[in-house]
Amino acid sequence: MRVYETVLYAEDVVGTAGFYADVLGLRQLREADETSAVFRLADNGVLLIFEPKRAGAPGRIVPSHGAIGPGHIALSVEPEGLETWAGRLREQGVEIEHEHEWAPGGRSLYVRDPAGNSVELVEGEVWPP
Amino acid sequence: MRVYETVLYAEDVVGTAGFYADVLGLRQLREADETSAVFRLADNGVLLIFEPKRAGAPGRIVPSHGAIGPGHIALSVEPEGLETWAGRLREQGVEIEHEHEWAPGGRSLYVRDPAGNSVELVEGEVWPP
Repeated sequence: MRVYETVLYAEDVVGTAGFYADVLGLRQLREADETSAVFRLADNGVLLIFEPKRAGAPGRIVPSHGAIGPGHIALSVEPEGLETWAGRLREQGVEIEHEHEWAPGGRSLYVRDPAGNSVELVEGEVWPP
Repeated sequence: MRVYETVLYAEDVVGTAGFYADVLGLRQLREADETSAVFRLADNGVLLIFEPKRAGAPGRIVPSHGAIGPGHIALSVEPEGLETWAGRLREQGVEIEHEHEWAPGGRSLYVRDPAGNSVELVEGEVWPP
């Protein structure tokens, strides 16, 4: 089993989707709307952004869900890629909230998406095998 | 870029982690505690379960986050594996909330974890390439 869909929530889906598309360069599968945005990642996994009240409404064709408050996602970048990303983010005016070196040898930087979700970019391995 | 960490939230982390370990068979990296649980997936991705108030408290070594309400995750199962999973889940008394056939050829079933998160098991492809 592997993760196929990872979900984050945002009140302003379109604005938040712009961060993932334009700043992080993720590939959108269709134009974002006020309910959801869909991104296809390099490993064929999918990142979804939902507006929680719409996704949580009863009567959808699939079961309802919707969480309020800042979520978290970590995205792996290519080896030796974190410094490049740090530079790109600073150039685009994105504040780097925190940087961290992990015991297994990985390194992370943390930013916030426009909805306040904590987005971690990771180089290397952060967890034991 | 690919998703490295996917996060769900639960008030009862230990009880919810039991569902992912015992019912879904995911491999825990360490014993779950009242703050978090960590699972390593087959593709080396990581699923984290956090208690939102603890993960959202200020002064952690990493930036805070924590969402309230039902989240969503989809997990890919092996080809032709969905029927086997449906049987296993029913045997363990897990209610299948919904089943869905998707236009690109994929099929999904939906259950709830003990925290109310919507967990989708997917066979095949649900999204355009």
